This record gives sequence, C-alpha cells and structure tokens, in this order.
Amino acid sequence: MDWTVKQGFEIEPFLQQLVGEARALPVSGKVADYIPALAQVNPDKVGLALATVEGKLYSAGDSTTEFSIQSLSKILGLVMAMNRIGDSLWQRVHMEPSGLPFNSIVQLEYEHGIPRNPFINAGAILIADVLASHYSASRQAFISFIRKLAGSDQIFVDEDVLQSEKQHGSRNAAMAYLMKSFGNVEGDVDRVLDHYFYQCSVNMTCEQLASSLTFLANRGLQPVTQRVICSRRDAHRVNAILSTSGMYDQSGEFAFTVGLPAKSGVGGGIVAIVPGYGVICAWSPRLNHFGNSCLGMHMITGLAEQLGLSVY
Amino acid sequence: MDWTVKQGFEIEPFLQQLVGEARALPVSGKVADYIPALAQVNPDKVGLALATVEGKLYSAGDSTTEFSIQSLSKILGLVMAMNRIGDSLWQRVHMEPSGLPFNSIVQLEYEHGIPRNPFINAGAILIADVLASHYSASRQAFISFIRKLAGSDQIFVDEDVLQSEKQHGSRNAAMAYLMKSFGNVEGDVDRVLDHYFYQCSVNMTCEQLASSLTFLANRGLQPVTQRVICSRRDAHRVNAILSTSGMYDQSGEFAFTVGLPAKSGVGGGIVAIVPGYGVICAWSPRLNHFGNSCLGMHMITGLAEQLGLSVY
Amino acid sequence: MDWTVKQGFEIEPFLQQLVGEARALPVSGKVADYIPALAQVNPDKVGLALATVEGKLYSAGDSTTEFSIQSLSKILGLVMAMNRIGDSLWQRVHMEPSGLPFNSIVQLEYEHGIPRNPFINAGAILIADVLASHYSASRQAFISFIRKLAGSDQIFVDEDVLQSEKQHGSRNAAMAYLMKSFGNVEGDVDRVLDHYFYQCSVNMTCEQLASSLTFLANRGLQPVTQRVICSRRDAHRVNAILSTSGMYDQSGEFAFTVGLPAKSGVGGGIVAIVPGYGVICAWSPRLNHFGNSCLGMHMITGLAEQLGLSVY
Amino acid sequence: MDWTVKQGFEIEPFLQQLVGEARALPVSGKVADYIPALAQVNPDKVGLALATVEGKLYSAGDSTTEFSIQSLSKILGLVMAMNRIGDSLWQRVHMEPSGLPFNSIVQLEYEHGIPRNPFINAGAILIADVLASHYSASRQAFISFIRKLAGSDQIFVDEDVLQSEKQHGSRNAAMAYLMKSFGNVEGDVDRVLDHYFYQCSVNMTCEQLASSLTFLANRGLQPVTQRVICSRRDAHRVNAILSTSGMYDQSGEFAFTVGLPAKSGVGGGIVAIVPGYGVICAWSPRLNHFGNSCLGMHMITGLAEQLGLSVY
Repeated sequence: MDWTVKQGFEIEPFLQQLVGEARALPVSGKVADYIPALAQVNPDKVGLALATVEGKLYSAGDSTTEFSIQSLSKILGLVMAMNRIGDSLWQRVHMEPSGLPFNSIVQLEYEHGIPRNPFINAGAILIADVLASHYSASRQAFISFIRKLAGSDQIFVDEDVLQSEKQHGSRNAAMAYLMKSFGNVEGDVDRVLDHYFYQCSVNMTCEQLASSLTFLANRGLQPVTQRVICSRRDAHRVNAILSTSGMYDQSGEFAFTVGLPAKSGVGGGIVAIVPGYGVICAWSPRLNHFGNSCLGMHMITGLAEQLGLSVY
Repeated sequence: MDWTVKQGFEIEPFLQQLVGEARALPVSGKVADYIPALAQVNPDKVGLALATVEGKLYSAGDSTTEFSIQSLSKILGLVMAMNRIGDSLWQRVHMEPSGLPFNSIVQLEYEHGIPRNPFINAGAILIADVLASHYSASRQAFISFIRKLAGSDQIFVDEDVLQSEKQHGSRNAAMAYLMKSFGNVEGDVDRVLDHYFYQCSVNMTCEQLASSLTFLANRGLQPVTQRVICSRRDAHRVNAILSTSGMYDQSGEFAFTVGLPAKSGVGGGIVAIVPGYGVICAWSPRLNHFGNSCLGMHMITGLAEQLGLSVY
Repeated sequence: MDWTVKQGFEIEPFLQQLVGEARALPVSGKVADYIPALAQVNPDKVGLALATVEGKLYSAGDSTTEFSIQSLSKILGLVMAMNRIGDSLWQRVHMEPSGLPFNSIVQLEYEHGIPRNPFINAGAILIADVLASHYSASRQAFISFIRKLAGSDQIFVDEDVLQSEKQHGSRNAAMAYLMKSFGNVEGDVDRVLDHYFYQCSVNMTCEQLASSLTFLANRGLQPVTQRVICSRRDAHRVNAILSTSGMYDQSGEFAFTVGLPAKSGVGGGIVAIVPGYGVICAWSPRLNHFGNSCLGMHMITGLAEQLGLSVY
Repeated sequence: MDWTVKQGFEIEPFLQQLVGEARALPVSGKVADYIPALAQVNPDKVGLALATVEGKLYSAGDSTTEFSIQSLSKILGLVMAMNRIGDSLWQRVHMEPSGLPFNSIVQLEYEHGIPRNPFINAGAILIADVLASHYSASRQAFISFIRKLAGSDQIFVDEDVLQSEKQHGSRNAAMAYLMKSFGNVEGDVDRVLDHYFYQCSVNMTCEQLASSLTFLANRGLQPVTQRVICSRRDAHRVNAILSTSGMYDQSGEFAFTVGLPAKSGVGGGIVAIVPGYGVICAWSPRLNHFGNSCLGMHMITGLAEQLGLSVY
C-alpha cells in the first residue's frame, strides 16, 4: 500500500513542522463572516491531528482548541440517516457532484427538489428532514452520536453561533421551502432548520474530529472501541461521495492534487479520510474563495505528499 | 491492500461467468444512434478483459472484437496533451465535475470558454486543439501513440464512423466556436474537429484497451515494456479526474457503487482503473440513458464487488 | 384612432355572440388545481365585460359571477405600491420581461434577489413586502382600495382559497426567503406572504374588474367618478409592463396576435387594457399550458380583431 | 390620438434643440469595439430624423451621415422572411422576449434550437438561413429591398466591417451550429453567416432609415410611393415584437419610459415606430452597457415625451 509509512518515520514531529510552516506563510484568505458569530474566532489558530486505524493519535498546534464544525457535521448527519432509513434515503437525495455554485437552486428546481448530494446545503437540509422525522428528539440524538464517537461528554453546541445561524438562515429556508414545494421535505420547515442549524453549531477539536471519523478509514469499524458504526459498504459510499463532492467547487482540484476523500467547513476545519490508514483533521479559520481553509489545504497537501496518501 | 486476490482464485473462469450472466440478462438499453454508422454494430456483443500490473491478461467473451472507442479516446488524448505542454494545460481546462448535462453549454459560457474537465466533449475538443496546435501531424501522432501502447500496428480508424461523425458534428462545432469566441480554442475549428473526430473513430478491442491503459494503474509505468508513459503524479491526476468525471452524469453513482476511476464511451466500452492492480475493459453496445453500457456496468460492478476493488 | 368604433355598431350583441361562440367550442384546457380550493369552480363558466372610458359598461354571459382574481390582483398591488413609495420602488423590482419559466428562481439568484418585473410571483411578493411594510393594516388597505375602485362594499376574500394558498405556498415561501437572503424583502416573511395570499384570494366579477381598471385606459383618471387613481405617467408604465410581461410566457405571442396590455390569473380571468378606449375582462376557468384562460384568450382575440384594437 | 402634434408646433427646430442638448451632455458610454472596424467611427456624431406617415421628413445634426446599421437590419430581414414564407416562419422562431442575456445559448438549447424571437442574434441568424435558402442570391435581394425602400441606389455594404464581422464571428457561428444540430438551420452554416454578416454591414443614414421604415407606422403601406411593403397584420406583428424585444435587455425599461416599438444596433442607431404617425431614427455611436446608444436614447425619450408618443 502506498501509505505504508516508512520504518522510523516520526509522524508527530512532521505534523509540528507542517504547523510551523503554515504559521510562517503570508496571511491569505479571510474568516467566514456570513454569520457574525463565526467572525469572532481568532484567525491565527492552526491545528492538525491524525488518528490511525491502529488507534494512535498524533497532533500539533491548536489541535485541542474547539471550533465550529459547520459543514463537517454533514458527514455525521449522513451516517445517522443511512443507518436509520437505509437505501430508501437515495430516493430523496442523489450522489452526483453538483457543478457550478450558482446552480444550487436551479438544479434543485430542475431536478424536482432532489438535491444532487448530501454535502451541499440542500442535501444536508434534506438529511435534517430525515433525522427530524425519524427521531423523536433528533438534536439530542445527534449530539449523543457525536459524543459516543468522540468518547467525550464535553461536546456542546455554541449558542451564539446557533442564534446567528437562525437569524441569517433565509437562504437555507428558501431551499427547504423549495424542496417542500416538490414534496421532498416532509416535516415542518422550521423544525427541519432547527435541526440543521443545531448540527452546524457544534464545537469540536481537531483531535476529536480525527478520532471520531476513523471508522470511515476502517470499513465502518471504530478502531479503539471495535464498535461497528456503519457497514463496510456504507463507509465506502460515504468516502466516494466525499471524493466527488466534499470540497465545494474545489472538489475536483482536491482529488487532482491530494487524492483523498475529504470535507471542509466554513469554520476552517477540513477532514480527510485515508482508507486503511486513518483520518487527518486540519484547522485554520481563514478561507479561500471556495470556502476551504487556506492553511488547512496547505497542511493536508503536504502530509499527503510526504506520506504518499493518494487513493489513486 | 483490499484487492490482493485470494490465493487460488481463478480469474478467467470468473470473467467467463460474468459474461455468461450478462448475456442471460433481459435486453436493456439501446445502441447509440446519434450517428448512423454506430447504429450498425451487433448489439449482442459482450466482451471483458483484465490486464494486471504484473503483466497478465485475462479475458472472456468478445474481448478480441474491435469496437469504436469513442470517448475512451479522451483518456489517451489527455495523456498526450499533459506530456506535451505540462501544467500550462490546466489554464485552459479545469478538473471539476460538470453537474447537470443541460449545462454543458451554459457552463462553458459562464466560465468564459474554459471547459469544466477534459472528459466532457468541450474539454476533449480543447485537448484536440492543443494536440492539433503542437503536433505537425496530430492525427498520425495520436494513432502512433495508441499503437505503441497496444503493441500492435493493426489499430485503425473506422472511416465510416469518421465520415458519420463529421456529418453530424454540429453540436461539437457549436462548442468549438464558443470556446474560440473566448479565445480558448487557438487553431482553426475545422482542423481541431478533424483531430477530435479522428480520435473518436479509432477501433480497438477490450484486450487492447485494458493492456494499453495499464500504466495508469502502475504510476505511469507500462508493466510489460517498463516504459514510462507519464509521470506518477500525472497518473494519479488522470485517475482523480476519471473518478469525479469519467462516467457522464452517472459518475457519482459509479464512485458510490463501484469506487473506481473509470471512463465510458458511446460505442459501449468502459475502462476502469484499479490503482496498483490493473485495468478492466468491458464492452457491450446497448447504453442506459446516461450513455453508459448497461452490461458493461453490470460486469464491472460484479468484478469489483467480488475482488473488493473499491479505492475507498 | 384605430378603435373608434364604427357608427351604429352594437357592442353588447357582439359580446353575446363571442360568449356563445366560446361556449360552442370543443372543451380545451384544464382548471387550475395547484390548490384544491380553485379546483372547485364550475369549469363551464364564460363571462365577458367591456367598460369604456366614456363610462359605459357592456357585458355578456357570466359577467356578474364572482371568481378568484388571483394574479389580476398584481395590477392593483402594483398601483398601490407606486402611489405609496414612488420611483424608489424600481430599485427593488425591475421592469424587464422574464424569459423562460424555469428561470424564475435562477434569475432571482443571478440578479441578486431583484425580481425581473412586478407581474411574476417573485415581483408581486416584493410588492406585498412594500405594502406590508408601509401600511399598518395592508390587507385592509388593499380591500378598501379595490372596493373604492369597484364602487362596491360587496367584495370579499374567499376564505377557502386563502387557507388553501397558505397550505400550498412553499414555492412562494422559497422565493420570499431567497429575496430576504439578499436583503430585498425587508419584513417578516410570514407577514409578507399573508398579504400576498390575501390579495390573490379576492373574488370579483368581470363587470367589477373591467370597471375598476378603466383608469389605466384613461391616463390614470377613473371615468365615472373623475378621481385620479394614479398619474398619467404611471398609467402608461403599468400598461407598458403589462404589454411585455402580463401573460406569463405567452406575453410575446399575445402582443403579436392581440396587441394589448393584458394580465391573466389562474382563476381564469384576463383583463386587457385598450388605451383611450376602455378595459375588457374575460373569464373562463379552463387554462392552456401557459396558465392563460383558453376561452378568455379566444374572446379577447375576437373582440380585438373586430374592433381593431391593437396599440401597434 | 395622443400624438396629434399641436397646431403651430415646429418639429425641425425641436429636433435641432434635442441634438444640441445631446451634444452638450457629458460624454457617456463607449463605442462598440467587439469588431475593430466599428471602433473607427467618429464617436461624437449625433443625428436625428423623423419621417411621418404623411410623407414629411424632418432632421437635425448628422442625419445624412452613413453609419453601420448592424442590428437594425434585423427588422428588414424579418419583413423579407415574413413576406417570403408566411406564417410557417413562426414554427422556426418564436416571438417571446428573451430574459437574461447570459441565457442566449442555454435558452436555445432548452428550447431545442428555436430562438426566442427574431431580434436576438440567434433569431436573426435563423432568418438569414430562411433568406439564404429561399433566394438564389439572398444578399443581392436584401440590398435591393433596402434600396427600393430608401429610394436610393447609393446604399452599400461596408467591406471593412464585413471582413471584420467574419473574422470575429465565432460566437455567431456557435449559435448557428447549435441550431443546425437541432435541425432548425437548414443551409450550410458558412453561407448563412455570409448573409447574416452582409446584412449587418450595410451603411445607411438617419434620414434613409426613418423613411425606409415608415410603412411600419402606416399599416404596411409606404406613404410616399403608396406601395404595400407588408400586410397590415404583419406591420402590427413586427411592432409588437419590437415592443417586447427590440432594445436588448433594456426592452422593458424602454417600453416603461418611452412606450414605443423600437430597435437599436451596436453601430449607435435606434429606430422607433410611432404607429399612425411616423418613424424616428436617432444615431450616436457611444453605447450604454446594454448596447443601446446613450444619446440616441436621450433624444428619443425627449421627443416622445414632448409629443406624447407612447402607445400605452
């Protein structure tokens, strides 16, 4: 396997080196400000963590500082929905890349309210509808799922971010109502959005995120606890959709340069799955114009090149 | 590695079994008829071949019958252009998935004549412009490249298909002129299309295609001859774009269900790359409504599942 | 003037003839059923009325039967908003035709939440926002305005239709939220939609509609009462937008064949303005696939041809 | 009629006043430069002419200077095609406004190669196909038609402009090939474009244009010669399409502010039809960002307001 790390290679010092190099780069990008609460973050934070399928955890920089996971929550919501309603999910959301950003709404209209994939906002709102409809207390179920994966009770929603999301959620409301007009959103839109914004507002650290998602690199099995989080087939499927659609309109370029299934969030976090090896989580708040963390991209690219991690 | 084939597993009998099963399925899909010459093919043909990085070749069914490679030629054109002009290529064509089929032309307009990726028609026409501009005899160079890869002088263009392409090429001409209006196509449109249609009209067999492309599963190195066809990095890159954009608007679903970089053509051929292991080529002329071979999809899915070939 | 009716021509018998001919035509089109309450109407009703700038009223058929005015209300809402906030209105809604129906939402996105004109749903919702923001009781103000124009206290909202609109209003909610996400809708979306649905749910008769709108054919002046309803310039402007955008995606064809400013509603009503002469209102519930009343189109075309009413 | 000019009003001095005022305005807009030959024009030229249905001709400024008629030729091509093939024309081109400029090509694709109306480029190219197919020498027929209308043999094509059009015609070629791919363009694309570019490259003066088009204000009858140029119905129809679609994406605004059927060309000319009264032609080369002459708009607006010319 390409990513058999060479004997004697020291991972943690290399992560520290990557963080140091990132911090030395000229400032680039800007912190997300579409909701005021997100703009409060310290823009200079840089964290990096790597959790392996053998249960080891390496980290560097601000890897134990909490940040808003935002769209990284879409992975966890998807896994919950797949587990809950099985393959019928794919009647309501597709698994195709979405093309141009300006198309988000016209595609939804052209495709009769069925989102292109679960990692665009429309798709994640659809997933929120599934969860809100199939759990009596979907937000509680969601936070419990995360806490179990992370092995920590100390994971919480940021109330300021949550309120801010709700106050600036008109665009997401527009998509939810459009899907409802096609009959694809079943529940009450306010309740669906409540769940969706709740998911986005969870705070986690790089270490927690890398550890929590290791099951995706390990055929659905969580390394440390040996619990089955999802089926092997579903782990492959999540990774497949991440590969084509996880990095916004830079997904193709990320596959081209890095070659790993990955997801980013506007809080500045990026997770990358290395099937059979582990999960990387990088964090730094300044974003490029695609909405992906500038330094996060830089560190993951460096790590993938050094360790030869491309799946292709 | 997932695809370490189990000791004692007999590959060729399994390929024969897959071909037999495919032939027994109810007829589904229809032969491409957008150009009359393609509609002449025997619709009941079924071929399957597997060439490994260790230099072995397995096959079954009509695996030595020639068929029109059509869009499979886009892989070979891309490799030639990458070799010829290097990274400057990516100023003129992107590597993002393309989204909705109806968008092909509006995307080209919205993105100022830069095609989304080299595997949609607009992108392949752009590649044809690169080749026609950088080779004094680009068509001869193309066929020579294929013959060398296949180790055979007996690879030819089907003249009927070529004439038919030219007579029904208005849509491709529209895209070429649109790119020229943005200054992205440099050469004379007629000459560019001559090259493009020539590429599409080459005939090859499943065995030839699988063997010819094995370098993509082997970091750029052709197994039997040990010749470097492209750099390791470029082999990864081609596979990455194939993963997100090789199977038309079914690319995401193919990643989801099969998990391999792949490309299909309207002649009914599909090639799938298994990094580190080999290349599969399946052929059967009847297409589903995405333009992908029905039985080809079926056989590759079966083979990938049996051997556990997903890269994810 | 083309529409100087010939001496001795008897208008009312001709209207009766047109209604009779319309009733004798083979059944064509279907009643709007996007909200259940509208589908309850008797589909065989046919009414026709003509109110002149000289204060005369001619009618035939079911011209005193009430029906749901639906989008005809957009004219009245627009006049109220023009009167209330003046030219600043045109910063928030444009006056261009809208092109393809499938574009409604993408255009709104592409043009940053500014609707193309006040007669598409997005534009009328924007107008509803203006009215809801500038009147302490906008719904009451609206119904009062209509009653004054019609000279009748007996004009009411159909409560069944209103409830039905609210229950099936997701698509309109989607557009309202999209405009709000761009900052163009200022008020609370629920309140804006309350006004919008209220407007649409008013019931009126052909005679009431023709009389009420005569000021548009008379430079803003209501013939009978001699009250100024709007400025001469604004009357021209409303007629201009009706000419390019009043008949959904059949506006160009209506200008081509009839040549009059006009507006239709999915309740089956059509009003056509004849500048300097009068206003026609036709009603029949069955709609063609553009959403315009089949028999209404037929009768207005016949009347316009007979009297030579084209403005062109 | 609104445009009964008041007794004693002196038209020509008023035209001179309008030209003088226009010349005194701050410079605004820029000369078309998409083809180099057009950019050679003197940008400070200002001409204005008015030809009435009573056969009178008034003018001011550079009204006898020739300029490139460009899209004004679309009116003449349309009238020729209507005369030649009758109502069957409307199977191949629609009469609806076109909405967003960026849609030109996607609309053509969405509507299966049928242009929205004859005044967008795609529609005029379709008309060129009709003329090229139905006349043995369509270019000669076109120039003869114009010369007859203008009553002058001294109307010619500008060869520099014609060559320049051909060299920069890729976008028009793209649309022609797209329509051909749908089977709507019947002839050879090169021949169709030859006719189209020829039409666009004709030079005329304000006086010639106003006089030539007076039949459109006079129910198809040329005032001076009393020749029937087209049917009354077709004159109405041309004016109707001009009203909704003649001024690019400013058509709705022009109807709103001026209220006359009109057409502009990137050579800086604008013609406006006043049914029952006459035809105005204004010319000044600097264009606003919609492609309409800045001073031309200004002068026509002033004239229409002063004389009360709105058809609405």
